Amino acid sequence: MGKKIHIPDSGKKRLVIVGGGFGGLKLARKITGSEYQVVLLDRHNYHQFQPLLYQVSTAGLEPSSISFPLRKIFQHKTNFHFRMASLLTIDPHRKIIETDIGTLNYDYLVLALGVDTNYFGMESVQNNTIPMKTVSEAIYLRNKVLLNFEKALNESKTEEVDAMLNFVIVGGGPTGVELAGALAEMKKYVIPKDYPDIDPNRMQIHLFEAMPGLLAGMSDKSSSIANKYLEKLGVNVRLNTMVNAYDGKILKTKNGESIRTDTVIWAAGVAGLKPGGLPDEVFTKGNRIKTDRFNHIPDFPEIFVIGDLSYMETEKYPKGHPQVAQVAIQHGKNLAENFKRMIKGEELKPFEYKDKGSLATVGRKLAVAELPGIRIKGFIAWIIWLFVHLMQLVGIRNRFFVFINWWWNYVLYDQSLRVLIRPKLFRYQEKIAEY
Amino acid sequence: MGKKIHIPDSGKKRLVIVGGGFGGLKLARKITGSEYQVVLLDRHNYHQFQPLLYQVSTAGLEPSSISFPLRKIFQHKTNFHFRMASLLTIDPHRKIIETDIGTLNYDYLVLALGVDTNYFGMESVQNNTIPMKTVSEAIYLRNKVLLNFEKALNESKTEEVDAMLNFVIVGGGPTGVELAGALAEMKKYVIPKDYPDIDPNRMQIHLFEAMPGLLAGMSDKSSSIANKYLEKLGVNVRLNTMVNAYDGKILKTKNGESIRTDTVIWAAGVAGLKPGGLPDEVFTKGNRIKTDRFNHIPDFPEIFVIGDLSYMETEKYPKGHPQVAQVAIQHGKNLAENFKRMIKGEELKPFEYKDKGSLATVGRKLAVAELPGIRIKGFIAWIIWLFVHLMQLVGIRNRFFVFINWWWNYVLYDQSLRVLIRPKLFRYQEKIAEY
Repeated sequence: MGKKIHIPDSGKKRLVIVGGGFGGLKLARKITGSEYQVVLLDRHNYHQFQPLLYQVSTAGLEPSSISFPLRKIFQHKTNFHFRMASLLTIDPHRKIIETDIGTLNYDYLVLALGVDTNYFGMESVQNNTIPMKTVSEAIYLRNKVLLNFEKALNESKTEEVDAMLNFVIVGGGPTGVELAGALAEMKKYVIPKDYPDIDPNRMQIHLFEAMPGLLAGMSDKSSSIANKYLEKLGVNVRLNTMVNAYDGKILKTKNGESIRTDTVIWAAGVAGLKPGGLPDEVFTKGNRIKTDRFNHIPDFPEIFVIGDLSYMETEKYPKGHPQVAQVAIQHGKNLAENFKRMIKGEELKPFEYKDKGSLATVGRKLAVAELPGIRIKGFIAWIIWLFVHLMQLVGIRNRFFVFINWWWNYVLYDQSLRVLIRPKLFRYQEKIAEY
Repeated sequence: MGKKIHIPDSGKKRLVIVGGGFGGLKLARKITGSEYQVVLLDRHNYHQFQPLLYQVSTAGLEPSSISFPLRKIFQHKTNFHFRMASLLTIDPHRKIIETDIGTLNYDYLVLALGVDTNYFGMESVQNNTIPMKTVSEAIYLRNKVLLNFEKALNESKTEEVDAMLNFVIVGGGPTGVELAGALAEMKKYVIPKDYPDIDPNRMQIHLFEAMPGLLAGMSDKSSSIANKYLEKLGVNVRLNTMVNAYDGKILKTKNGESIRTDTVIWAAGVAGLKPGGLPDEVFTKGNRIKTDRFNHIPDFPEIFVIGDLSYMETEKYPKGHPQVAQVAIQHGKNLAENFKRMIKGEELKPFEYKDKGSLATVGRKLAVAELPGIRIKGFIAWIIWLFVHLMQLVGIRNRFFVFINWWWNYVLYDQSLRVLIRPKLFRYQEKIAEY
């Protein structure tokens, strides 16, 4: 591809940030308006708030409530340019990247690509399960759940109905736990009202986790509380259970069990979104890129990596940091600071992660929170979860709409966004759907 | 298809309503709980508020704000059943319909299918223009508009950029006029902020109408006011201009002109959604079905037609009623009343349309209203338009969210839902997208 992305020359050093997630966005916001020309690339035109994706897929929130147009954030900023583009390869020697819309040269490149779903090489799983990393995937799941119920109404064979109403979630991290809880609440509060012709007990929610406990990043105590909450809501939690095949009809586990289901959500692992052009040596486990304490790739001083894609060992975190939003945000902040220091010729500040705690919610009034020095559960933890997530959303409008939606759902026990809007395929559609 | 749709036998007469639009929904709500078993079929699981579709496509409203889950409306109702299904054919002699999910027998059948886009047999237009009849189509248009701007940023050939930023709307009815106005406001308020690298004047909005005036259903006075408003907003209105071909690149008119554009929205005509199985004689112009004053198809006493699909001549409307929501709603009301009378053996009430007036909005504070005995324009008409549309929405939640969105957009001059969420194609997707 010889075409160049047209960005006006500003005379300033060009800083290209690839990825508008938590890390890339924080960096871009902090550094824009300084002595750099900032170019932000993302394959979408919006920042997506992943922690609430599961609520989109269970009809509790609208996609737009957790998505914020990137252009809107940077309105009226000078020396800032956004382009909707996907990174293909990097030529670190010529300092040029190639994207799906053309090439672009950089002085500094920040990779904030994040991660994608990891299927651990299992093709049947990749082909037949539903991932939960993007808004499109969340909407797809929402439609699938609704469609299963519509179909079940019209099916007479018991085993077919069971397959339609069996929902299996693989992966007991926050996404898996929160999704299982939300589906269980749907079973409890929504299904009996919307589908009086279906016995709600036929809907079964299974959560499969390969490890001996849920919420690997949290304490054993919180893990077992989450487990108890889920069982209280009727979720069938299966620990120490590794899934190894799913053909679209039958899910198989490593210990020889099988379960018939039409819907499997795969939230069991992530792998870095690996750009082309970098030598294999820079990648480590899970496709993460190894950096020094300044988010540098040691061999390529102009390339930085932040967020989930990066792997940095420190004294406190000898096996790298957890792949969570807080790390990405703090990476972005620290790197922005360092870019400013670079201009002034000051010494760079090594990254140090401040753990602000972790939270997971299972359902209404059911959550676990581990904050520095304190562990909380139940209603208070749930309120903290709500508040923290609300405050992290970009934009007053989003906060407001999410708040109102939550309030509405809380009072009425009813997620009311159960509209099954299916994409219309037009002539252009195939091209648009490729990404 | 031999499979039967499973609906429990209630011992009551079965009334099957096909279509949950304005007419079908009103009828179902009025008749449910009476001496009939009501079965409502719709190809979607939601009622869609078409008058505001254009705001979805210009990023002012969310799809869910103008869509309401049909199951939710009928929660806790007895002798009511909803099924998501598309009508294929009718066997009026055996009193059975065939749908995409199976067959169903009826005692009474009400066709409330509505209309679809009419391309008047022009294949190139059908293949390359964007219609505006469903939520999916509106989202598609929203994505297309946003994508055009993203692409234009990266295009150096002037004529290509012009094609991307030329938006042509064909059809000067309310949909065309309102959409043209909304795009013009986007050009004025949003584009300069979101795309500082693009000269907003390069965005051109053209409205083509085959007749000598806009808003055919309204007075000449209102029509010319709407025209003036549109021109004030910078829309290039072309009357007496009939489009006869569009290959995806060049739009051609009957009088020999051509214009290069990547985006043509087709809002120029409708045709009834014609079910199979009825003899050709029952259909009249525009695929409408001719009925008597009781919404009967004269030759098939058990089949009724309401809303846009029906064609009924009365003294006041010798050429049939306009295809608008009010007629459909009043049909639904009158037919519900007649069904109740039928049970009691009372005389049926012939339908009489009460014209409550018509409204069209062009932009902020710019609208025309023709109410019984009074014609209003400008700010007051706009407020009336807002109020009437708000009140017609189904559900308090929708009214509330639309109101908040409008207020937000009004104060900030900014439709903030500019997120380009593209459908993800999974294995099942093709099947799902067919409808």
